[in-house]
Amino acid sequence: MRIATLTSGGDCPGLNAVIRGIVRTAADHGSTVVGFEDGWQGLLEDRRRQLYDDAFIDRILRRGGTILGTGRLHPDKFKAGLEQIKANLADAGIDALIPIGGEGTLKGAKWLSDNGIPVVGVPKTIDNDVNGTDYTFGFDTAVAVATDAIDRLHTTAESHDRVMIVEVMGRHVGWIALHAGMAGGAHHILIPEVPFDIEEVCKKMRRRMQLGEKYGIIVVAEGAVPKPGTIEMDAEEVDQFGHIKMQNMGARIAKEIEKRLDVDVRSTVLGHIQRGGTPTAFDRVLATRYAVNATKACLRGEFGKVTALRSGHIEMISFDEAVGHLKEVPMRRYQTAQALFG
Amino acid sequence: MRIATLTSGGDCPGLNAVIRGIVRTAADHGSTVVGFEDGWQGLLEDRRRQLYDDAFIDRILRRGGTILGTGRLHPDKFKAGLEQIKANLADAGIDALIPIGGEGTLKGAKWLSDNGIPVVGVPKTIDNDVNGTDYTFGFDTAVAVATDAIDRLHTTAESHDRVMIVEVMGRHVGWIALHAGMAGGAHHILIPEVPFDIEEVCKKMRRRMQLGEKYGIIVVAEGAVPKPGTIEMDAEEVDQFGHIKMQNMGARIAKEIEKRLDVDVRSTVLGHIQRGGTPTAFDRVLATRYAVNATKACLRGEFGKVTALRSGHIEMISFDEAVGHLKEVPMRRYQTAQALFG
Amino acid sequence: MRIATLTSGGDCPGLNAVIRGIVRTAADHGSTVVGFEDGWQGLLEDRRRQLYDDAFIDRILRRGGTILGTGRLHPDKFKAGLEQIKANLADAGIDALIPIGGEGTLKGAKWLSDNGIPVVGVPKTIDNDVNGTDYTFGFDTAVAVATDAIDRLHTTAESHDRVMIVEVMGRHVGWIALHAGMAGGAHHILIPEVPFDIEEVCKKMRRRMQLGEKYGIIVVAEGAVPKPGTIEMDAEEVDQFGHIKMQNMGARIAKEIEKRLDVDVRSTVLGHIQRGGTPTAFDRVLATRYAVNATKACLRGEFGKVTALRSGHIEMISFDEAVGHLKEVPMRRYQTAQALFG
Amino acid sequence: MRIATLTSGGDCPGLNAVIRGIVRTAADHGSTVVGFEDGWQGLLEDRRRQLYDDAFIDRILRRGGTILGTGRLHPDKFKAGLEQIKANLADAGIDALIPIGGEGTLKGAKWLSDNGIPVVGVPKTIDNDVNGTDYTFGFDTAVAVATDAIDRLHTTAESHDRVMIVEVMGRHVGWIALHAGMAGGAHHILIPEVPFDIEEVCKKMRRRMQLGEKYGIIVVAEGAVPKPGTIEMDAEEVDQFGHIKMQNMGARIAKEIEKRLDVDVRSTVLGHIQRGGTPTAFDRVLATRYAVNATKACLRGEFGKVTALRSGHIEMISFDEAVGHLKEVPMRRYQTAQALFG
Repeated sequence: MRIATLTSGGDCPGLNAVIRGIVRTAADHGSTVVGFEDGWQGLLEDRRRQLYDDAFIDRILRRGGTILGTGRLHPDKFKAGLEQIKANLADAGIDALIPIGGEGTLKGAKWLSDNGIPVVGVPKTIDNDVNGTDYTFGFDTAVAVATDAIDRLHTTAESHDRVMIVEVMGRHVGWIALHAGMAGGAHHILIPEVPFDIEEVCKKMRRRMQLGEKYGIIVVAEGAVPKPGTIEMDAEEVDQFGHIKMQNMGARIAKEIEKRLDVDVRSTVLGHIQRGGTPTAFDRVLATRYAVNATKACLRGEFGKVTALRSGHIEMISFDEAVGHLKEVPMRRYQTAQALFG
Repeated sequence: MRIATLTSGGDCPGLNAVIRGIVRTAADHGSTVVGFEDGWQGLLEDRRRQLYDDAFIDRILRRGGTILGTGRLHPDKFKAGLEQIKANLADAGIDALIPIGGEGTLKGAKWLSDNGIPVVGVPKTIDNDVNGTDYTFGFDTAVAVATDAIDRLHTTAESHDRVMIVEVMGRHVGWIALHAGMAGGAHHILIPEVPFDIEEVCKKMRRRMQLGEKYGIIVVAEGAVPKPGTIEMDAEEVDQFGHIKMQNMGARIAKEIEKRLDVDVRSTVLGHIQRGGTPTAFDRVLATRYAVNATKACLRGEFGKVTALRSGHIEMISFDEAVGHLKEVPMRRYQTAQALFG
Repeated sequence: MRIATLTSGGDCPGLNAVIRGIVRTAADHGSTVVGFEDGWQGLLEDRRRQLYDDAFIDRILRRGGTILGTGRLHPDKFKAGLEQIKANLADAGIDALIPIGGEGTLKGAKWLSDNGIPVVGVPKTIDNDVNGTDYTFGFDTAVAVATDAIDRLHTTAESHDRVMIVEVMGRHVGWIALHAGMAGGAHHILIPEVPFDIEEVCKKMRRRMQLGEKYGIIVVAEGAVPKPGTIEMDAEEVDQFGHIKMQNMGARIAKEIEKRLDVDVRSTVLGHIQRGGTPTAFDRVLATRYAVNATKACLRGEFGKVTALRSGHIEMISFDEAVGHLKEVPMRRYQTAQALFG
Repeated sequence: MRIATLTSGGDCPGLNAVIRGIVRTAADHGSTVVGFEDGWQGLLEDRRRQLYDDAFIDRILRRGGTILGTGRLHPDKFKAGLEQIKANLADAGIDALIPIGGEGTLKGAKWLSDNGIPVVGVPKTIDNDVNGTDYTFGFDTAVAVATDAIDRLHTTAESHDRVMIVEVMGRHVGWIALHAGMAGGAHHILIPEVPFDIEEVCKKMRRRMQLGEKYGIIVVAEGAVPKPGTIEMDAEEVDQFGHIKMQNMGARIAKEIEKRLDVDVRSTVLGHIQRGGTPTAFDRVLATRYAVNATKACLRGEFGKVTALRSGHIEMISFDEAVGHLKEVPMRRYQTAQALFG
């Protein structure tokens, strides 16, 4: 059998572990693997390379990013290219395609599958928002990096009696903020799912200070939004529809707290370090298990599915279940965190 | 409400995160917490201290070990002490007890519960062998530490053309070996659940060498055992029943491989570093969620249960489910790893 | 003997290791230690606490920040308070004072020493710019944190064919940028000591791209400045004297590169994570050696000096040598880095 | 110019950083580099490969071990091969040789230099025992790994009221034990330079216990030796000259302490993890600076020298200074540590 793979969308720790796992498992069954470069773009343009089961591939297990490169292709261009894609796969003698990506990529994969191409999808996102799976790889690494940063900020905030705002990734869901905030012992966590009231945040900080603690750590997802009317926004902070633009939310909140409390406030944006570098052991295991199971599904001809982790087991779920809607932080999870704000 | 907690059995990263989580959640509901020292022993001897929701407790989130100390008490002594335990709890005005521990501790907790004491158990073990929960806290940290060590051993093994044996924890189950071996890119993994054939191991190594790779990494759980008759054992290596004594299995395997292959073999025992130190973000979140949920169960009077992680959610399961049998590595999981040995 | 200590200026990993080292060494010689809170301010206001040689002090070895708090006091206020300071030290029965701080703090310490107070200074700065010592503690930790971040940014930059700008600490000197850039394999490093020509930076990046590498990492000290006339500045970017304001230099450079090259450029500001958290082993050893030697100098009555590391040995140098001028990156060191830009 | 390099002796974090630095610096000056495999052996057998200034070489900066492999060659064989070595270098058109290694390697390098081969040596050893340089690369990484392990052992020792013995590398000198012990807050440190009295060690532990601390951490260099007559040795523990065999010293000390104190004692041997894996930022910078300076020395024809770090500067020292004698821990440094044992 001849299997193809590609990585698409934002990069994510564990992508290379999946690539290695596919090559290894295929080799173990006498099959070979090719990789298309830069996501769907490379598939469309037939830019591919043979991936050998050698020392190079063995070592990428630990490497962040993706050796195949990644990219974003407009869905219209993608769909217009169906015949080209089919031709490229046929030319290259590909029997099965394993695209690795987030929600957008999986939607594309589903569309190819619906159009007759033998596809098995592997979900990927540091945001942990793919539905139908307990975790996606990359998320644990992002949380670990953010938690390490929060641990460091605690000691500096405490030494200077500061409130420190830490902005982490998460435009649409608050999983990274929730987990890193809980692991890092944050005194408040703001997520997109629960619009915040700045007065409530300040009340928590005031209470800490009354109890003698002169510092605080607030973890903010980049997509956190204030409750309508609770913060006065300047004209350039809202778009034409009156929606708040999601940028620099951490700095914005810092400004609002400084207005309300007599305390030194600083904000830090963790940014791209959350998505790069060596994956955690957890993510390497998950990525590798996805790879082995996706490859075995190809080998036994079980197409049109997506790998998922459920209660410790890898299962194959339908594309519809995976891409139907974003997995948001449920209110009950947020309330668990609230019990700890102190 | 007045809640008591204690930690019992081997120490484990995340114990302090549970203690902090209980104190915080209780305080959030106007309840107080006392801790008994050194496990069941302290409960029996009424050695306890008040745990305050202060800066000290807040900070133990990151600290390995347990501020309450731990210990092992013989089940007979424990059972003989029932009336004393009841008296101590009554004297201290305790309304609920949250013991944190592994299989043995949970069995003790069940027995107290069966005897009328209001108990909620929190499972703990770096071995990940408690039934009914997807993961136990401490396991992820142990795997992370072992994986980091394996990563380091790769480069030294490779530079010197050596086979390196890494003995990790796991007397009865192979979870740490399986996960650290997969995450660390091991070329073979030996676990208690699957007796090994030393010839098969050597065959894998020989094949690697034929392919030009001159080194290898083999991860061995301390409880790994050879298939009967495959290794000649000296008299002092077996007990009176003919069972192989589980000690220095890594060094033992190194000796056998050196006999069979013309290669330099070294063995390393990771030992206690796997169970100490700062917990990973994953374990801090899991431990904290257990704590919040166990405390809330106490507050609403739901006793006789154990916290468990299931598909991302915290559920309360019965003691019987948790302590019925050890959760072993299923054959299918081991086969996934085998696909990667190369 | 009764020794006092305090920490002043920005916080820095290793401050607590010094405090612990002083308390331990003093106890070993039958002496006691008090700590003044929040730097010079606490000395002026006689806010002090006894520091006991107990388990709490033993454990702060690993903790970032400073348990004594820190602060900045205006030199005029400080000098006006001389008699108050003398009175406070006399009241508390202090025989020797060990202030721990950067250039400003050491100048204050010298002034106290010149005015008859028995002082031994301990230099501290993550910037490594104190003269007369090979390294200051805190610097190694800052470099380690920045290098870890750069390592992570490499893989994401590479996967997306991006130029990534990393802004690190260093308003006046480029030591952190130089070391983190060398350790992180940066493709260019910009430091305050060597005004940069944006065209030269772009030329390097263009050359990389011609050689087939589609990404680049540029490490920028926050105080890096362009050569006069090489970048057109807006009015709000310069102050009344025509000097470029040192803020957001990373983002500024990103904008300029995007103008000149057809490439995606992102910038990240590492910020406060560089100065918080657990110190590296190197910094713990250096901080501890400073502490032991400063305390022993007090015990033998050798005052008016500053601890310094020289070629592996701790020596006592004069205040004048330590505070005379900032230690800048010498041109030869920068040229060593340039050989590696590729 | 055509430069050759090789790595010889035990592997060490930073070797690849040196190799990369040589290739980069040479390329920057229009020169090329070849690498001989497996140390002197490869030089003798003319096993070499061209090292290109490409993405592969750029990335090895972070990789532990050595891509060239390493080995040990008997000095007699080495010396007998002089003419062969000269012929191989001439055939390959080599103008300069940069061997990277410890004391033995540098002695070999000196001998080649004395015999007319243009050589610049780069010192390497995790043991930090090369004379004439403040630090050797690899040492900081070894100390960091050992310190991390000691940090982890603290919490488990404390939870179980145990004395934990940690055996670290160092057969002839105690640098790793001294630094890791100081950084890890050990309660005693045993090094080869200062024969230990087991009674003194036990006295320290007893004193801790009287003060209420029920655990202890003792760091032991593998080459630590008891004062003659203080420990009764079995026949198989001494060699024919009555010298104590240096093996399992940690376990041996554990046994002696258990005999003398009523306490649970465990020992851990850190082993090979101390010499593998990603180098610290400190070691990457030092290795890279050695590489740039060694290459530049070759380019300007300054042969017969060894790179050294002195008070922050890289200098070229004579072979005689570097290999004259091992750099031991001076008594004064050990006394600094003793002040902290508590």
